[in-house]
Amino acid sequence: MSRTAYVNGRYVRLDEAAVHVEDRGYQFADGVYEVIAIKDGHLVDEEPHLQRLVRSLGELKIRAPMSNAAMRVAMRELMRRNRVRNGMIYMQVTRGVAPRDFAFPANVPSALVMTVRRMRPQPANAVEDGIRAITIPDIRWHRCDIKTVGLTAAVLGKQRAREAGAYEAWQVDRDGYVTEGTSSNAWILTEDGTVVTRPATNAILSGITRRSVLELAKANKLQFEERAFTVAEAKAAREAWITSATSFVLPVTQIDDRVLGNGKAGSFTLKLRALYMSYATGDGATA
Amino acid sequence: MSRTAYVNGRYVRLDEAAVHVEDRGYQFADGVYEVIAIKDGHLVDEEPHLQRLVRSLGELKIRAPMSNAAMRVAMRELMRRNRVRNGMIYMQVTRGVAPRDFAFPANVPSALVMTVRRMRPQPANAVEDGIRAITIPDIRWHRCDIKTVGLTAAVLGKQRAREAGAYEAWQVDRDGYVTEGTSSNAWILTEDGTVVTRPATNAILSGITRRSVLELAKANKLQFEERAFTVAEAKAAREAWITSATSFVLPVTQIDDRVLGNGKAGSFTLKLRALYMSYATGDGATA
Repeated sequence: MSRTAYVNGRYVRLDEAAVHVEDRGYQFADGVYEVIAIKDGHLVDEEPHLQRLVRSLGELKIRAPMSNAAMRVAMRELMRRNRVRNGMIYMQVTRGVAPRDFAFPANVPSALVMTVRRMRPQPANAVEDGIRAITIPDIRWHRCDIKTVGLTAAVLGKQRAREAGAYEAWQVDRDGYVTEGTSSNAWILTEDGTVVTRPATNAILSGITRRSVLELAKANKLQFEERAFTVAEAKAAREAWITSATSFVLPVTQIDDRVLGNGKAGSFTLKLRALYMSYATGDGATA
Repeated sequence: MSRTAYVNGRYVRLDEAAVHVEDRGYQFADGVYEVIAIKDGHLVDEEPHLQRLVRSLGELKIRAPMSNAAMRVAMRELMRRNRVRNGMIYMQVTRGVAPRDFAFPANVPSALVMTVRRMRPQPANAVEDGIRAITIPDIRWHRCDIKTVGLTAAVLGKQRAREAGAYEAWQVDRDGYVTEGTSSNAWILTEDGTVVTRPATNAILSGITRRSVLELAKANKLQFEERAFTVAEAKAAREAWITSATSFVLPVTQIDDRVLGNGKAGSFTLKLRALYMSYATGDGATA
């Protein structure tokens, strides 16, 4: 079955899905995006993802292409046409098509593209082995809170990770504090059993999975702090993990050359992951 | 006459010129670009522009889509088909089309898109009135030396300028020094008659017009310094101007609310502009 994409109101074959060369997403990274996991036909944390999309659009002063209600309908239709019940949906909104000029064009409708793809669950042994993260300087712009498609730095960082045989790169600010991964938020469990993750300022993306995990921590009376942590602190941590819409809660068992614990996923992380997976397929994720 | 664009080896109608929704330029700002002015059929500073394109591609580890010699041929064919003898050519190279994944895809050819457009010469009175620049914080990433399409910050900056009734926004680093405009380099002439512009580090794009103007300054034994200058210094300057491939040398007669001199283009700037325009249409620009 050929896959179907959504392009500005039309459902088209993915291999024919195209945008104009003067789309401002293509020429200026003048657009934003969201990725939502699909579990058993449910869109995980759909509402907060759509709220964040609206916020990102607002920060760039891009008009929403349609209401969230209309977007929900289009998302479901795209899932149905692609027969995807486990996977992810990608949506990108740009400022639209206009003759190239840096300033905003007048009276141009914003453009919406969506694609959906199947994704297999992470195999249990991959989760238990955990992943390796390397640390790299954070060279991004000052508004990492906006989920723009301006991802050049993230691309370069992820590639460095891959070339080092790692899964993710944790970006480090000039003061030595970890900001976040190139496509995930970074977390540690300190020796005294406190969950630590960086506060959601302009320096990081306010992850939807991050937020849900914080809420689960709160609900389960886990000890946690939202504060920046250094690379040294991370390497001395009892456990570490990342969160993202598609990796959920994924153990980090090595940071650079430092192996955490016995090199296997820690029990705390696995418990947190189980809590989250239960949440993601449960009430919090009904579509 | 409908305009023609170049898209990966094909000449197509501009209104039908498209790239795939999984082009990495569209999804990741994973690409670079150049703009070259066309004056009387000549591509101004063609060689250094193509050299800079190669450098930008190298920094992102994107393979060049073709040799510079082949690109020269395609550029000329595009100009011919569009019958443009005065205007500009825009070229964009991205890492190509691949299923969305941050890390580089394997064995994917890079993609080249080019468009050309007519541009009228700036009217003499606009040049004599000069332009207004506002100053804004520089919120960009740390590799502004790479001419990527990750231009979200530049878009927001230019829009702020337009909304303030200005032509350009000069970006200012956290130490109070001007880096550059959103699409131009920034220059001042100090009270003692020294030309000052910021050195070409990672903090700015090494402008081709900037470089040519520096060479003209050298050849004409003008006093100049490559060093950072503050906003206060710029506001106290005798004259100021910007350089870019399409605005050439353009006088700045107001910075924020501070009018420079009598509010008209300074004689030094006009002389420098004349020198550059003569260079641009002369030997330095033969195609």
